[in-house]
Amino acid sequence: MKRIIFLLVAAATVAGVIAFRASASGRADGEAAPIFGVKIPPGYRDWRLVSVAHEAGNLNDIRAILGNDPAIEAYREGKLPFPDGTIIARIAWSYVPSEENNKVFGRAQSFVPGSAPDWYLQFMVKDSRKYAATGGWGFAQFDKDGKPSADEAQLKTCFPCHEPVKARDFVFTRYTP
Amino acid sequence: MKRIIFLLVAAATVAGVIAFRASASGRADGEAAPIFGVKIPPGYRDWRLVSVAHEAGNLNDIRAILGNDPAIEAYREGKLPFPDGTIIARIAWSYVPSEENNKVFGRAQSFVPGSAPDWYLQFMVKDSRKYAATGGWGFAQFDKDGKPSADEAQLKTCFPCHEPVKARDFVFTRYTP
Repeated sequence: MKRIIFLLVAAATVAGVIAFRASASGRADGEAAPIFGVKIPPGYRDWRLVSVAHEAGNLNDIRAILGNDPAIEAYREGKLPFPDGTIIARIAWSYVPSEENNKVFGRAQSFVPGSAPDWYLQFMVKDSRKYAATGGWGFAQFDKDGKPSADEAQLKTCFPCHEPVKARDFVFTRYTP
Repeated sequence: MKRIIFLLVAAATVAGVIAFRASASGRADGEAAPIFGVKIPPGYRDWRLVSVAHEAGNLNDIRAILGNDPAIEAYREGKLPFPDGTIIARIAWSYVPSEENNKVFGRAQSFVPGSAPDWYLQFMVKDSRKYAATGGWGFAQFDKDGKPSADEAQLKTCFPCHEPVKARDFVFTRYTP
């Protein structure tokens, strides 16, 4: 009996910890993006890292690409296509020089994340039946307040742009060990 | 009894999954870096993201900063100093243009991780007693083969360089939500 109580207390503690973490592990607003109906997946900010990138030009952002467990496992095993349930998250921040770092280095060399642009969060969700018309992928974009920030016309441009990387199941980002 | 067997099987499965993951979740060579005696912490590649950065100039790398659970919790709660047991990992890759991405964008704007430089992996390990002389932090650097790649003289330069950010417990990188 003591053991059962211990287990119940342990389970409640774990549940509490998970609930606490969820609140700190990314925005989750509940509003679905157009066309594909994708919502911000809870806890995405706790996902493991796929890779990083800098997009210059008009975007001028620095970004991290994270993956849920099915994504990371498929990447590491080189498994293509990605299995249903895969979600890839892309977080972008404006690309700004770090004055405090540069002061230490003695020159302007350090670039870090700044504010969140309108294209702050993007998700690719794999569901080969639901999204059969777009290579099995649903696409969504959200701003810093968790609001969908790409309209139907914009989201329709996602898949055509990803088509050149069909050989990698339409995913641009490579896993970087 | 059936339930006990189920639990044993479940525990064995979890252990197996953890063992599998560990092998894919980063290099772990066992060789300790000089001065501070820091080894590559197992599973660091599975840690959560703190932030990203681009260092231009001589380094010319793009990097991800990851943290173990105590690190991420302290960052999110704004808790300073970081508690003993905190480890912050910095993975750096050479900064290269992505020709395949640029072809799709129609211009040279996409920069991604390339090969692993000599300064591939760095770790800051918090142990306020063991590393009392250097603000409570031990420092280490490893190359792509998991070999320590900074000698004593180089590692002695870590702490003086981090001293300007004493107010943030000697940690440069800010958490980026």
